[in-house]
Parts: sequence; structure tokens; C-alpha cells
Amino acid sequence: MDAVEPGGRGWASMLACRLWKAISRALFAEFLATGLYVFFGVGSVMRWPTALPSVLQIAITFNLVTAMAVQVTWKASGAHANPAVTLAFLVGSHISLPRAVAYVAAQLVGATVGAALLYGVMPGDIRETLGINVVRNSVSTGQAVAVELLLTLQLVLCVFASTDSRQTSGSPATMIGISVALGHLIGIHFTGCSMNPARSFGPAIIIGKFTVHWVFWVGPLMGALLASLIYNFVLFPDTKTLAQRLAILTGTVEVGTGAGAGAEPLKKESQPGSGAVEMESV
Amino acid sequence: MDAVEPGGRGWASMLACRLWKAISRALFAEFLATGLYVFFGVGSVMRWPTALPSVLQIAITFNLVTAMAVQVTWKASGAHANPAVTLAFLVGSHISLPRAVAYVAAQLVGATVGAALLYGVMPGDIRETLGINVVRNSVSTGQAVAVELLLTLQLVLCVFASTDSRQTSGSPATMIGISVALGHLIGIHFTGCSMNPARSFGPAIIIGKFTVHWVFWVGPLMGALLASLIYNFVLFPDTKTLAQRLAILTGTVEVGTGAGAGAEPLKKESQPGSGAVEMESV
Amino acid sequence: MDAVEPGGRGWASMLACRLWKAISRALFAEFLATGLYVFFGVGSVMRWPTALPSVLQIAITFNLVTAMAVQVTWKASGAHANPAVTLAFLVGSHISLPRAVAYVAAQLVGATVGAALLYGVMPGDIRETLGINVVRNSVSTGQAVAVELLLTLQLVLCVFASTDSRQTSGSPATMIGISVALGHLIGIHFTGCSMNPARSFGPAIIIGKFTVHWVFWVGPLMGALLASLIYNFVLFPDTKTLAQRLAILTGTVEVGTGAGAGAEPLKKESQPGSGAVEMESV
Amino acid sequence: MDAVEPGGRGWASMLACRLWKAISRALFAEFLATGLYVFFGVGSVMRWPTALPSVLQIAITFNLVTAMAVQVTWKASGAHANPAVTLAFLVGSHISLPRAVAYVAAQLVGATVGAALLYGVMPGDIRETLGINVVRNSVSTGQAVAVELLLTLQLVLCVFASTDSRQTSGSPATMIGISVALGHLIGIHFTGCSMNPARSFGPAIIIGKFTVHWVFWVGPLMGALLASLIYNFVLFPDTKTLAQRLAILTGTVEVGTGAGAGAEPLKKESQPGSGAVEMESV
Repeated sequence: MDAVEPGGRGWASMLACRLWKAISRALFAEFLATGLYVFFGVGSVMRWPTALPSVLQIAITFNLVTAMAVQVTWKASGAHANPAVTLAFLVGSHISLPRAVAYVAAQLVGATVGAALLYGVMPGDIRETLGINVVRNSVSTGQAVAVELLLTLQLVLCVFASTDSRQTSGSPATMIGISVALGHLIGIHFTGCSMNPARSFGPAIIIGKFTVHWVFWVGPLMGALLASLIYNFVLFPDTKTLAQRLAILTGTVEVGTGAGAGAEPLKKESQPGSGAVEMESV
Repeated sequence: MDAVEPGGRGWASMLACRLWKAISRALFAEFLATGLYVFFGVGSVMRWPTALPSVLQIAITFNLVTAMAVQVTWKASGAHANPAVTLAFLVGSHISLPRAVAYVAAQLVGATVGAALLYGVMPGDIRETLGINVVRNSVSTGQAVAVELLLTLQLVLCVFASTDSRQTSGSPATMIGISVALGHLIGIHFTGCSMNPARSFGPAIIIGKFTVHWVFWVGPLMGALLASLIYNFVLFPDTKTLAQRLAILTGTVEVGTGAGAGAEPLKKESQPGSGAVEMESV
Repeated sequence: MDAVEPGGRGWASMLACRLWKAISRALFAEFLATGLYVFFGVGSVMRWPTALPSVLQIAITFNLVTAMAVQVTWKASGAHANPAVTLAFLVGSHISLPRAVAYVAAQLVGATVGAALLYGVMPGDIRETLGINVVRNSVSTGQAVAVELLLTLQLVLCVFASTDSRQTSGSPATMIGISVALGHLIGIHFTGCSMNPARSFGPAIIIGKFTVHWVFWVGPLMGALLASLIYNFVLFPDTKTLAQRLAILTGTVEVGTGAGAGAEPLKKESQPGSGAVEMESV
Repeated sequence: MDAVEPGGRGWASMLACRLWKAISRALFAEFLATGLYVFFGVGSVMRWPTALPSVLQIAITFNLVTAMAVQVTWKASGAHANPAVTLAFLVGSHISLPRAVAYVAAQLVGATVGAALLYGVMPGDIRETLGINVVRNSVSTGQAVAVELLLTLQLVLCVFASTDSRQTSGSPATMIGISVALGHLIGIHFTGCSMNPARSFGPAIIIGKFTVHWVFWVGPLMGALLASLIYNFVLFPDTKTLAQRLAILTGTVEVGTGAGAGAEPLKKESQPGSGAVEMESV
């Protein structure tokens, strides 16, 4: 690669191709993780007459699919699988804006494909509304947003605490699964529990029903924002300067997958297949 | 900082400000952890007519919220979130008396705010008594205290064994969650299961009902005391001298977060944000 | 061993005996793991009148037996206990063809013995069809194959991610158990959930009933194939050359137990009992 | 200590006192672990009218109490808490005969105290037969012994695999808990599930009922014996010579807590309280 003259037309297209290869693997991982999350998670909500799912069963299914999806993809993309988590990483200067936008797009496409697959394999009489999130009658929209905010607050705090290289080294899969299940054990009663705009978006697109859909964006994103501020500026503040934060935001500086990873100048792209599974920057 | 004349008025206020900054992060962590514990734990006890919670569901929710709260705050404060645990650490010379008193205050405020939030989001007809702990009719107060003592005994033994740097290195979140769930699987039948005076205090303040509230302080604190003596003086005695224990009690000597950590002379306060998440002494 | 003239008749029989000893321990481990998997997993499906098993109870039992079987045998054989997993390792160049065939044979024998033991200890009126997999009436065979494909896709992705030395070092037992339980929480409604041709084969042989048995080979094997391609060629491609892949396929080159392990030239057989629990090549 | 004349009367009483201090901590740990195991495990079987325990709830409680008891005591005694496990360690040359006998005695006393405490705190109308193990009507004694054998076989294999320093380093608590829960998910239907003669002995002594009590010694001990032979001589044979095995049997040579630990000549007793939590030999 070094033989190409920096700054020339060839150099620009080489850089673009390099960037695309670096991020396409991470986007595929986000697509795959969110698709599996919606297929299995929303699949557990289906009301089979001979075995109606209990709140505990649904919550444990979301626990297990989260742990599996994180275990498979965290080294490839950081395993956000959730626009609220991606927003939190953006606010905490752990991901660039272009990459964040691309992540959310991949998550929404993955959620839609997962919901479509579920629609395809489910017997007609059991599909009903494909488990879309709705607000319970005796619960006001304000209470629904407040609950979704609190559920996502604990989720994002747990994601940061489980991927922060200053605190832990192993796979965050089990802990993040625990936090998703915790949210469902309370949230199901109020809104069927979103904590994840993509989880709400996928089924809504397939069924074509967006009643109070905004609640499942506003609540989770506000919770993620609050959690990111608490974690990154109160509980475990890191030492990034404003200049570094801006460089990360625009993508000129690379960050490791998890919270707490230091910001390093743009590295040569790691050889594909070398086993090195570091996130490349874009 | 070193330019100030030791012993003068300026030096005293500088020390006070330095101490406050060191402990305020830990107190916020205790407030946050206990608030989340009460909101989600007591939230799982709510009796939604269409889905009455089983004993197993409540116990698993307490398991998950404990694991999440410990994972998020153990590096900031040791994640006690429970006056009984703080007492056990005090008796085992792992925390100073001023810090212990401040911890308990933060835990009680956190529990009250958590219960208030729960009261706010719950539909009126489902709030009932906000899951306050009461003694079952067929159970005597003596049996209730004995059960709360045994439940907290196993919890505190498990907290020590999971945070003792001589035994383990990873996050204690999963194990402490397991122990809290274990207590609930038995204790719910007797007292709704406290094991944590703050958990009982929060809802009682919001609802204004303190019937036999003393049981949920006496039982857990006696169990914590017994466990601390068993662990620190029988099972895994450490080598602290009496002089060291007194220095720790008054706060002139620092200890690491977990049981088994050696006592070191007062260190310069670690730079905030340096990622160093050691507990400062007070 | 070195005194024998290479290439002579003595040398050939010595090599055969050495190979047999190396693989017999691994085959016994596959036999044991699959037998325990079928005895306990299918045992949880039995319909005791006083305590009909819930979907959650069956799924958690499959979770626990998988974790136990993997914990006991992963250092001896890699703990496949599933022809679909063995196919995935074969496609990913992590096992030779002879060894794969021998593994599948040991798994099928183990599954049959496990089912026979279960048949033996179960009271007559409760055995019924010994939990064989069948397709639900309202589900088409196409939907059944699609569901079994998706269930096994996530299982194999999780097996690779949990045994890939580039990603993790500890025991894969807990994560693989989580993935098996996840599959059952959705799959039970469609086909009683196979994800493992050996699990379907054992009870079918004992009961003598093979209705749509092919679904429980085609679905899982297609899912395993797709997962192996995704993991080994898209998400985390490794650097094996075509020559190396052919050498591994024929057994002339050794690989470590998990995905991501590098291919090393044939090593002297590790001393039995030396505690070295590396997989020998065949 | 070294000033005393070896071989004289003083020397003998010094040795006896030293041995007693070394083993008393381990015996107290076995007493504590088994007592907690019976109190919480058998406590979960109690039939509270308003909340009859499901099979899943009982199994999960045994899971959690096992994990907690192992986490607290494995560094002090190896956390057997079960005569069958102690027999397996004896057969595998991981413990001396005198220490094994002392362990079993401490386990039986602990189980009796745990059952007595449970009897004390339980309301009279709910105690019934204090959860003693009995064989189900439709199950023959032969089937009951076979089932108890298979349940304990998988338990002991899992205990070895989770404490074998050649395979793993972390706490075995979670995995051993998983294996105990697995046994209960199947065994409860047949015998209420023992897998542990001490668990059956404690309640039987308090209630004074020993119907077919022998099943809960013969089944588990045979399963433990078979598992020890499989693990230590087939799956992961170690390199101990016959002479070493005899020296370990009689107690003249020390072994680490877990399976797979090498045998070392008798070391000076580690200083109490030095945090060194190695098992001393007797």
C-alpha cells in the first residue's frame, strides 16, 4: 500500500476502499446481532395457546439472546445492537459520528429483517401484532417515558461498567444480558419493554403500526444520554481533552471497543484475518 | 497543593475539600446503587393483576438488580448498598467509622428516592403498600429475626468471599446477586425478605408504615455481625494488629475496596479521572 | 518409540496403536457428553402428571446439562456432542475428516445409550414417546427446517465465539449452555427443538419412530454450515492457506481444540497422564 | 516450635495440637457449608399453601445455595459439603482417609444442625416431613438407586472438572451449582433428589424417619465412585505413583484443594492468618 503517492486520486480511492472494508465487518456484526436479538427476543413474546409465555420466560429469553449476540459480535463491533447504546458511546467519545450513524442504520435494517423472518416462520393465527411495544392502558405516556428512561439508564451504565478496560477484561456478554433481563422484568408491565428503539422499530415496520412509537425512541435515548453523563463525567471520568473528543467525533482518531479505552492516533489498518479483531476507525 | 503551610487555616480547608471530593464519588455510587436496588427490586413485588409475580420471579429480579448495581459501582465504593454490609466491613476493619456512617446515610436517601420514583410511575390501583416488609401471620417475631439473621449471614459471608483479593480477582457482581436471590427464595415466605435495612426503610418512609420495622434492622445487622466475626476471625483471619484496626476505624489509614485488602498508610489522593478507581480514605 | 525403523511393518502398527489411544479418549468424551445430554435433556421433557414441565424448565435443563457436559469434556475432545457442531468445525478447518466421522459415530452411540438409560429408569406410564422431536401441526415442514436452521446458526456462532482463543480463554461451558437454552425457548413450540441430530436420533431409535426425522438433520446441518461460513470467512477470518486446510482435512496436521487455534505440524504424542490435555491429531 | 526435642512427649502433643488447628478450620467450613446447604435447600421444598414451590424453583434454590456455600468455603476445605464428593476425592487420591472421615462427620453434624434450625423457624403446619427424601410410588428402588447414581455421577465429574488446576483457575462455585440444579430438575420426580447422603441424613434424624434411607447412601456413593474412576483414570489420568497414593491415603503427604493438584511432601504448617488459605495435611 505504501507505494501509492499520498494525496493523489489513487490514494483517495485506496483510503475509501480501506475504510469501507474496516467498517463493513462491524456493520455486518451490528446487523447480525440486532437481527438475532429481534428474532429470538420478540419470538419469545408470541402467545402460543398451549404455553402462554410468563414475564420471567420472556425476560430470560431476552437475557440469553443478548448474551449470545454480545459474545458473538463484541470483538467485531462492540456489540451495541441498540441505537440508545450507540448514542451513549457517541456522547462518551467512544465512537465517531459517521460510524454511529452507520451503526444505527445497520441496527434498524437488522431489526427489520429479524422481524420479517419471525413473521415468516410464525403460524398465521399466532403472529397477532408481532409483539410491538404499546403503552398499557392504566399507564400514562409520561410514566411510560419515565420507565423506559430508567430501564435504559441501568442498561447503559451496565454496558459501560462491563466494557470499561479500567474495570474488567473478560467478555461483557453475561452482565449485559443480566441488565436487559432486569429491564424486561419491570418494563413488560408498562410498555412490553423496549429499552431499544431498533427492537420497537423492526416489528412496527413489518406490522405497519406506529402508535406512540416515539415513546420508544425518546425514553431510551434520554436514559442513555443520562447514563453516559453519569458514567463518563461523575462515576469514572476519563482524561480525554476537548480536542481529543472532537477528533474522535469526526473520526480522525481511533478508539478501542469499550468504554475507558484511551484514544490513539489513526493506526495502519490491522491485517484482515490476522486474528487482530481491533475496531478500525472511520 | 504542597505550597500550602501544613497546620494553618488554609491547610485545614484544603484537606476538607480534598476529603469531600474523595468520598462524594463513593457516596453518589452508594446512593445510585441502593436507589436502583429498591426501584427494580421492590418494583418486582408489585401485584399486576394480569401477571402476579411468582416467588422465583421476585428472587431473580433481586438477583439481577444486585448484579447490575454491584457491577456499576464496586470500583467506586465497594457497592455495599446495604447498611448491614457496611456494618460487616466496619467490624472487619475494612472501612472507617466516618465513611461507614456516610455510606448508611447515602443508602437510606437512595432507597427513599428509589421508592419515591417507583411510587411515581406505578398506576394507583397497583401500588398498594409499595412492597413494605411485614412478618407473616403464622410466623413469630422471634422466628422472623432468626430468619433475617440467617439470610444476611450467608449474604455477608458471600460478599466477603467474593471481594477478598486473597481468594478472587474478578467482579463480585454475579456471586453477590446469587446470594441475594437465595435469601429471597426462602425469606419471602417469612417477611417478604429484607436482608437490607435500607430496602425496608425506603418504602416504609414513602408509605408511612413502620409496623415491626425494627425486625428488619435487628435481624440483618445481627447476621452481618456474626458473619463478619466468622469470616474475619475464624475462616480467613487476616493479620491486622489492634493498632492498625484503630487507625482504620478512625480513618487515618486507607484500605482497598474488598475484604482481605492490606492496610496502607494514607496515600496522596489519586488524581480524579486518571482512571484510577481506588477508594480514597476518610 | 524412536528405536523402531520408520516405514517398516512394526512402525505402521505402532502408529495405528498410538493414533487409537490419542482419539479413544476424545471419542469416549463425545460418547459421555452426548449420553448425559440426552438423558438429562430429554428427561426434562417427560410429562409427570403432578408437575408438567414448563417451556422455561425444559430450556433451563438443556442449558445446565450443556454447561456441565462441556465443562467436563471440552479439554478432552472440544465437547461437540452434536454432529452439526462437528460439521461446522470441519468446514472451518478445525478438525480432520476421519476424526469428524469418528466423533459423529460416538455421538450417535452416546445419544442412543442415554435414551436407553432414560427409557429404563422412567415409569412405564410416563415414558410416552420419550420426547422425540416432531413438527407441530400448524407449522409447515419448510418453517420447521427454517427454524431449526436459525436455532443452530446462533448456537454454532456462539460455540465458535466461546472457544476462539483469539477472543476468550476461559471455559466455554456457561455461554454454550446459554445458547442451547435460547434455542429451546423458541424452538420447543415449533419442533420440540432439536438443534442437534444426535438428540433427535437417540430417542427415535429407542422408540422406533422416524417421522420427518430428516428435518432434524437438514435444518441443523444447514444452520451449522451457514454459521461456519459467516464466522470463519466474514466475522473473524483466520489466515489458513488452502494447503493447510487440506492437510487438516486429511489429518496430517494438528489443530487445538477451539476455533481460531493455529495449525501446527504433527507433534510427538503428548505423554498420557502428563496432565497435558491437548487434542492429538488423527 | 523448632526448639522442642523431636520424638519426645512434648513433641507429640505439639504435633497433635498443630494438626488439630490445621484441620479444625476445614472441618468448620464443611460444617458451615453443609448446614447452609440443608437449611436453604430443604427450606425451598417447604409447601407454603399460598406459594407451592415449582420443580424449577427448588432446583434453582439448590443451585444458588451450592454456589454460595462453595464460594465461601472452597479455599478453606475444598467445599465438599457431601460425603459422596469426599469419597470421590479419596478414591482419586486427593484427600487422606483420616481427613475424609473427619469431613463426613462434620458434614453430617452440619446437616443435622441445618435441619434443626429449619425445623425451629418453620411454622408448625408447614413443616410436615421436613422434605425428607422418599422414593416415588411408581418408581422401583432399583430405578431410584440408578437415578441417584447417574445424578451424582454428573455432579462429581463436574466437581472434578471445575476444581482441576490443569483445566481451570477461577472459583468452581457457579459450575458446581449448575450441576446440583441439573440433578434436581430430573431427580425431584424420582426421589425428591438427594445426590448427597448428608442432605438426606439431616432431616431424617430430626424427623426420625429412615424409610429406604439406604438408597440415598448407596446411589450417590456408587455414582461418586464411578465418576472418580472415569475422571481420574480415563478422561484426565494424573501421574501419581502407587507409593504416592498410599502416602496421601495415610496423610503423610499433602495435596492442594482441587483435583489435578500435585502431591507435595509435608510442608511446615502455613502461618495462621497469613492469608495463605492452603489446605494443611493430616
